[in-house]
Amino acid sequence: MDDQESTSRVRGDREVTAGDLFSPECPTRQLLDRIGDRWTSMLVKVLAEAHPAERGFAELRRAMPGVSHKMLSQTLRRMIADGLVTRRVEPSVPPRTWYTLTSLGLTLDAPLAAVRAWAEANMPAVREARKIR
Amino acid sequence: MDDQESTSRVRGDREVTAGDLFSPECPTRQLLDRIGDRWTSMLVKVLAEAHPAERGFAELRRAMPGVSHKMLSQTLRRMIADGLVTRRVEPSVPPRTWYTLTSLGLTLDAPLAAVRAWAEANMPAVREARKIR
Repeated sequence: MDDQESTSRVRGDREVTAGDLFSPECPTRQLLDRIGDRWTSMLVKVLAEAHPAERGFAELRRAMPGVSHKMLSQTLRRMIADGLVTRRVEPSVPPRTWYTLTSLGLTLDAPLAAVRAWAEANMPAVREARKIR
Repeated sequence: MDDQESTSRVRGDREVTAGDLFSPECPTRQLLDRIGDRWTSMLVKVLAEAHPAERGFAELRRAMPGVSHKMLSQTLRRMIADGLVTRRVEPSVPPRTWYTLTSLGLTLDAPLAAVRAWAEANMPAVREARKIR
């Protein structure tokens, strides 16, 4: 797979302007795994609907039924690291923490909404295929 | 969360015509996790580009650099169970196995392509945020 390897080397350079999912060493693969799960999808929707208003941690948990404290924390931390969410600590007593999508995070709403809509519309067909009743 | 619980009960009925990602017991959540990963995304793209032609296992592996035999098998098995892919065994010697997207699987190509395009276009911005160099 010489072609692939040389492609990967080129992709690793700083001149590269876009990722390539089909290049094994391209971080697009890890990125895709990070944004494709249920909690990221829900969080982006909730924060996009609130935007530009911020949301507190407890509000986010209420808006995402079934999410654990740990999963929400992890998802927020990962999205902050990826530059998709900003975190603001309000110096009140006790301090409050607020979250909002960055402009980059906002652009993720439309593509994730397309997959969400597909999953919601086709879940019955998939369930039928799986004979889950 | 009485509202959520009653929604979930309704969602469990056979009259239900669509899923709801925000309902904790709705299988849309598991479905979203299953279709959101890198390998499903790549496999749908490769099979959609080939459609209506079928592809063999070895061809699929070559088209998805970096995928292991095990990961490709698992992804195919899961997509077959979900009604997204069909498997055909050709009674040759040795027998050959062919894969193709179902009509349901084909409809998944566009929404996954939107997320793939987002990830490829914005990977440099995310990498910048993560300071991965």
